[in-house]
Order: sequence, then C-alpha cells, then structure tokens
Amino acid sequence: MKPEHDYQRIIMGIDPGTNVMGYGLLGINGKKPETIMLGVIQLNKFESHYKRLGRIFERVTGLIDQYLPDELAIEAPFFGKNVQSMLKLGRAQGVAMAAAIARDIPIAEYAPLTIKQSVTGNGQASKEQVANMLRRLLNISEDRIPKLLDATDALAVALTHFYETGKPQIARGPSSWKEFLARNPDRIAPRRK
Amino acid sequence: MKPEHDYQRIIMGIDPGTNVMGYGLLGINGKKPETIMLGVIQLNKFESHYKRLGRIFERVTGLIDQYLPDELAIEAPFFGKNVQSMLKLGRAQGVAMAAAIARDIPIAEYAPLTIKQSVTGNGQASKEQVANMLRRLLNISEDRIPKLLDATDALAVALTHFYETGKPQIARGPSSWKEFLARNPDRIAPRRK
Repeated sequence: MKPEHDYQRIIMGIDPGTNVMGYGLLGINGKKPETIMLGVIQLNKFESHYKRLGRIFERVTGLIDQYLPDELAIEAPFFGKNVQSMLKLGRAQGVAMAAAIARDIPIAEYAPLTIKQSVTGNGQASKEQVANMLRRLLNISEDRIPKLLDATDALAVALTHFYETGKPQIARGPSSWKEFLARNPDRIAPRRK
Repeated sequence: MKPEHDYQRIIMGIDPGTNVMGYGLLGINGKKPETIMLGVIQLNKFESHYKRLGRIFERVTGLIDQYLPDELAIEAPFFGKNVQSMLKLGRAQGVAMAAAIARDIPIAEYAPLTIKQSVTGNGQASKEQVANMLRRLLNISEDRIPKLLDATDALAVALTHFYETGKPQIARGPSSWKEFLARNPDRIAPRRK
C-alpha cells in the first residue's frame, strides 16, 4: 500500500509530557517543509502511571507505523522543578524514544530555548508566538491549530531539527547526533519500506 | 520449541542504571523461588546516550523473549542527586519499561529501602548483605554471583515482588499494581505462548 503523502524526508516531532504529549509530522520536499499532521495524546484520563507510559508507547508506535518518519526530534528540557517530576518526564521520554529505537529511527533532542530561537529568532518567545510563527511558516490554517499548544510545540521541534540538520557543520562541538548525520549522510535520505 | 525451564511463574527483576543495568530472573513453583539467570548489561562502553538506551531496549526485549517472564519488577529510587541524573535514570527506566509494555507484561516497582527490608529484614542493609542473603535464600553457588552487585540487586527486586504479591491485601493504600493483582488474579498465573 502506497502512503497518501510522498515526501523525501519525514520528521516526527514530540513534546513529551506526563499529562499531555504533543506530536507533529513534518514532510520535506527539497527545502520546503510542510505539515502532515499534528495533535496531542491525552494522558491525564489515565490514573495509573504505567497506563500513561503504555499509552505513549502504543500511540507513538502507531504514528511511526502510519507515517514512517525518518527521524524523531524531541523537546528535552534539562531542568525541572524537582527530581521526582524529572524522573517521570524521563520515563515518558524514554518510552517515546523506545518506540523510535524499536523501529531503528534516529533520535535528536533540542532544548526549549534552542527551539524558540530557531523558529522565532527569540529564545524567550511564548508558546503563542511559536504557534503563530509556525502557522505562517507552514501555512497551517486556523482550524488545524489544535487548542492545545503542545502539538505546535512538537511541530516546532521537528522544524528546528530540519533547520539544524541543514546547517553546515561548525567547529564548536557538534552533538553526537550531528556527528552521526555528518558521517552518515546516506542514512538520512532513504525511506524505510 | 519448549523452554528449558518449566515454572508456574517467572519474575524478571531489573536494577536500571545509566552505566550498568542489572537483571535477574526468578522461577517459581509453588512457594519456592529459584534463580534462573542473573547478569548485567554493560552500558559504559557506549559513549552515546541513545546507544545506551538502544542497548537497554534490545537486551531487555531479548531477555523477555528468551525467558518469557510473567511480570517485571523494577528497582526505582525516587530521589537522586540532581534533576539531570534523574532525567537520565528516568529514560533508562522508561526504555526498559517499554520493552515490557510492548510484550504486555505488567510492571511493579519497589523502592531500595523496601527491597532491602523485604530480603534481609533490614532497610539499611548493604549491597553485600543483600547478595549474601540471596545466596542463602536462592542457593546460588559462589561462581554464579557476578562480580557486579547490580545483578544481585535485580534478583532482590524480583524476590521482593514475589514476597509482596504473596502477602494478603491490606487496607493501607495499596498501589495500583497491587490493585491490579487483587482484581485480576487470573492475569498472573497463565504463561504467554
């Protein structure tokens, strides 16, 4: 079965949270990114921590199998309120990452400041400013912007990954992901069957 | 293909870490627990964080497929040095949990103090004391005790789960796992094919 969309490269963005997880899929042809899909995974209806993790794994796996992204980009805050909330966030991230690992999809992560800087040019931009900029950049119509801004945040991390991987490699300590890309350019282009 | 061992119930214990992950498999017939296997997954040879997570997922999935455990018990410290290390630990736990979730295996977690208390009767016991007690309880010969104590810690959490699930249900706020067990006793006994 042929997929409905035909892009050279698909980037899946995820904004993981323990109450709501946002996701967005960006399709790229040449230098032009397009929104394929964005949405949220509601987790707060599940009381059990394990059920939430199970839901994340199930939905992220489902999205990967449906849209066949080539890469996963994840919004990763490195500082949180307390160790307890960071452990929970780490688990949510780990489960989402495992879904990508299980399908051999490379993972990249970006700090919130990097994402805001990359999308709006201002590292201190609000979620609304990020959403407005995305709407303009990606031609998302008003009705496709979901009520929850976690979905646009997920699209923002996918777009950041697109921008960052298009940059020429610079000397100031590239992350291992960038090194991977630089050393394995052939690992990016081909789509999995 | 028939598995080599034939137990009514198999519990897999995991002591997740970001450098070394310990695992242990406990087979149960009647009230008698026996060690099936214990060991460690070395992670410190991988520089990349993603490769470490990938290795955890791959090895835990492999162990599950080889030994077909009915339940996963995980050692889960709730307090750590800092938010950064807790995020990393959370990811390692999340990836291991995802391997269980992908195979529909219920997960239980126990704090280090509970494990030490349950195995040795002393919540402040050292890793060596836990290992010595396990050797006596489970008849592990000297040469099967791995050099790294993370493996015996993993066996200890499996044994704790065995003890805890055998206890009568008490009124003081059972965890959702205990509720699950109490409400779904039939989900425990049958082995997956």
